[in-house]
Amino acid sequence: MEQHMNGQSPETGIRNLSKFCQAVRDGLTLEESAVEMKAAECFIHEAMEVIIDEAVKKATDVQEKVCEWHSPEQLKELLDLELKDGGESDSKILQRCKNAIRYSVKTSHPRFFNQLFAGLEPYSMVASFIIEAVKTSLYTYEVAPVFTLMEDAVLKKMMELIGWDEGGDGIFNPGGSISNMYAVSLARYRFCPDIKEVGFYDAPRLVMFTSQEGHYSISKAAALLGFGTKNVYVVPSDNRGKMIPAALEEKIELARSEGAVPLLVNATAGTTVFGAFDPVDKIADICERHSLWLHVDACWGGAALLSNEHKHLLKGITRADSVAWNPHKMLMACLQCSAFLVKDKMGLLQRCHSAKASYLFQQDKFYDVSYDTGDKSVQCSRKPDAFKFWLMWKALGSTELERRVDKALAMARYLAQEVKKREGFRLLMEPEYANVCFWYFPPALRDIPDGPELWRKLHTVAPVVKERMMKTGSMMIGYQTHGDKPNFFRMVVINPQVSKKDLDFVLNEIHNLGKDLR
Amino acid sequence: MEQHMNGQSPETGIRNLSKFCQAVRDGLTLEESAVEMKAAECFIHEAMEVIIDEAVKKATDVQEKVCEWHSPEQLKELLDLELKDGGESDSKILQRCKNAIRYSVKTSHPRFFNQLFAGLEPYSMVASFIIEAVKTSLYTYEVAPVFTLMEDAVLKKMMELIGWDEGGDGIFNPGGSISNMYAVSLARYRFCPDIKEVGFYDAPRLVMFTSQEGHYSISKAAALLGFGTKNVYVVPSDNRGKMIPAALEEKIELARSEGAVPLLVNATAGTTVFGAFDPVDKIADICERHSLWLHVDACWGGAALLSNEHKHLLKGITRADSVAWNPHKMLMACLQCSAFLVKDKMGLLQRCHSAKASYLFQQDKFYDVSYDTGDKSVQCSRKPDAFKFWLMWKALGSTELERRVDKALAMARYLAQEVKKREGFRLLMEPEYANVCFWYFPPALRDIPDGPELWRKLHTVAPVVKERMMKTGSMMIGYQTHGDKPNFFRMVVINPQVSKKDLDFVLNEIHNLGKDLR
Repeated sequence: MEQHMNGQSPETGIRNLSKFCQAVRDGLTLEESAVEMKAAECFIHEAMEVIIDEAVKKATDVQEKVCEWHSPEQLKELLDLELKDGGESDSKILQRCKNAIRYSVKTSHPRFFNQLFAGLEPYSMVASFIIEAVKTSLYTYEVAPVFTLMEDAVLKKMMELIGWDEGGDGIFNPGGSISNMYAVSLARYRFCPDIKEVGFYDAPRLVMFTSQEGHYSISKAAALLGFGTKNVYVVPSDNRGKMIPAALEEKIELARSEGAVPLLVNATAGTTVFGAFDPVDKIADICERHSLWLHVDACWGGAALLSNEHKHLLKGITRADSVAWNPHKMLMACLQCSAFLVKDKMGLLQRCHSAKASYLFQQDKFYDVSYDTGDKSVQCSRKPDAFKFWLMWKALGSTELERRVDKALAMARYLAQEVKKREGFRLLMEPEYANVCFWYFPPALRDIPDGPELWRKLHTVAPVVKERMMKTGSMMIGYQTHGDKPNFFRMVVINPQVSKKDLDFVLNEIHNLGKDLR
Repeated sequence: MEQHMNGQSPETGIRNLSKFCQAVRDGLTLEESAVEMKAAECFIHEAMEVIIDEAVKKATDVQEKVCEWHSPEQLKELLDLELKDGGESDSKILQRCKNAIRYSVKTSHPRFFNQLFAGLEPYSMVASFIIEAVKTSLYTYEVAPVFTLMEDAVLKKMMELIGWDEGGDGIFNPGGSISNMYAVSLARYRFCPDIKEVGFYDAPRLVMFTSQEGHYSISKAAALLGFGTKNVYVVPSDNRGKMIPAALEEKIELARSEGAVPLLVNATAGTTVFGAFDPVDKIADICERHSLWLHVDACWGGAALLSNEHKHLLKGITRADSVAWNPHKMLMACLQCSAFLVKDKMGLLQRCHSAKASYLFQQDKFYDVSYDTGDKSVQCSRKPDAFKFWLMWKALGSTELERRVDKALAMARYLAQEVKKREGFRLLMEPEYANVCFWYFPPALRDIPDGPELWRKLHTVAPVVKERMMKTGSMMIGYQTHGDKPNFFRMVVINPQVSKKDLDFVLNEIHNLGKDLR
């Protein structure tokens, strides 16, 4: 195909496009292709070497930094962000690729414990590259045949693990917050399909329930979907972070007595801060009794369904009306990989969100248009994220996924033991999952008696230690307050590249960075 | 770092993980890293070769097929989708990668004209690979310093092109539908901030306006956000597909007379089917007169802002309150790259959507937390999509982007000329942008006089030609009905790899595939 490749060097090849396009402007030619594919290939090849060196090798090398901290002002200068009329050479662009990686945080590093995602999963990473290269959108079978079927296969397998023997329906979304929003949307639609058409104006005051430890996305959904945040009733949790079923029942009664109509309960399987699991089975009893939609936010904890040892944490999830579960968290699929699953298999998801666009969802196509899943979505374009999970699942098998979950939880327990053993560290609570929350008391604070002075001083420790770890680049761990608790560290253990040594290192390093504080 | 790499061959290396994890289960070791990074590197390397060969070289080669059609049933067998307990060898997984690409539609192929995206943009593709490899989420500066600043730089430059000299605010989203939803959400919040907290229950009936040619996402937003689809008033368009300003004014009066409160007008710059531009300037006059939020859905047409020759199409956009603009469409950034921009710079976006999660948005951080942009979003995790546009913009410069837009529109005009010249083809209307809509009349239909019989027969032509082109794999073009118009082809010209020859080929091929129809 000489018209698309002519063997020019990569440096001149893509650049020639400019000359060609000048010719177009001069009215000279629409005769030939304007893109030098050979040059493009070479550039992609070179860039891939950069990516493997910088974002795979160096990013996972424990002897490298987790991050190279610069303030926003410094980093703006280093990156030279301004977009200009003229372009830049490929070698300049490759340098920019290196810098983008260099100054980014290395979330794949064995000492990154800052979020509910971490680590490098090579199969999923490759799948995500393929998704980018294939560049399609998951609205119709016609333009995304492979990914449509893979999404279906992954959803089915996830539903099997949830225990929905008769199947259900589902959709991958750009994040767990959107999945939780789908639950609220479907619950409303099941309650009163007319609201889709006529709006909320004549509806009774519909309210939902979530625990004080539930993710903030329920509140965001309430705001966005027109319920209002005050129509989210917050149910107290016990000292382990689990929703108290009796308190839920009380809140439901309270809402009724205030003239509201209870609609949905969000139970959390794996809370963001403590990794706590709400007692889904007991909550399901209450939902049945009151005919409420039960949504389980298992974005973080869903992975335990793969583990025979730990799946008891989600007991009762099979009774849920819907489940949100993010394989991009504990299971390490590339960002984002986030499923919303619904037990209904009579088309609720599609009826709730469909708009029947004639330019996409023609009904006179030559294949079975039930494979055109796009109208189930509130999006139009949608990424085929399920492939990131499908490929790694094929490579590793359920057995290996199970072992990874088991290992992560074993590591978290090891860390908790170490925290309890060490002077100056105090565990907030025994971890139920992979979140380990603890305080570090510098020596100067250790003789101060329990009380407001100690807690005030302790509150300032974690932010300073965090600043120092970022500036050293030695590790990354989150910190936060919770209720009236002063700032503590929340460390999340996921990455199977992490060993005991890394966890020991973290505790030593916290002490090194914070021991002078007073 | 011998603990993370020990030089094993790639084939055995990653697999060893299973043995290691078995050891973990047996309680033997948490002593060492469980991931063979060396093996992972080798696998990623091999997979990249596959991606470059199959998804770059072959996918853009005009002599290869655009798609290899299989029915869902056939393809399920070919892909062997089932997820099992056991894993598979790396060589098997590489074969699966090849198959995933092989059976996917080649949207980068010079004869793919089926959607509002197309073509391969090498710089953006590399940026998207980096995003996947770096694996982070855009909620805090702390975990996404580089991408936070790049998003800001891209948004600023886009606002400059819109003509908001004093800046504004914005956010990249997973698709234009979500951006349009943000506009509706912000308009509601500006109208009455209390709705965020108390919900829609006591609100007046708020209504919005969009043209009959506007994208269905406005209707989806109305359903999801609790307005109800019937509270979207559909404004007639003229025979070019442009909203009729006088008709908008009538609809606003009608809504008022029905007791509704007009809130927002959605003007479309580049409609999905015809590529028509609503007269934004005149619509802005009306919005000012009635104090309505003016949103411009420029997802498709925004690219014309880069062209001195064509930016007149968006005259008046600077008066908009908000704009949606997808660089992943005409400008060929990788999917998805989709910006929502708002003229307000007093924090409306953040106030409207914030939930102030304490585990993410600590206020006692050691850097300026105004760089933590995550609370502007309805999502929690969010992909750093702006980088896909930033890197290609740096590489090409605004001048080259302008030339690409000009070339695409010149190509569309060439195609329209050819359609008019050729026997058996009829243009629906002169293209204003890159959408060329036309009918093909097989010889047997050419002598049938205009009327119901002709239109009924014509209606069946495009679906059959489409089926045949998919099965031949020679090209991909969309078809659809519109109002009472029988099925026609909608061809979208974006990809600068496309030459006149490819457009000539398409028209010849339609004739070849359809000439026997009667």
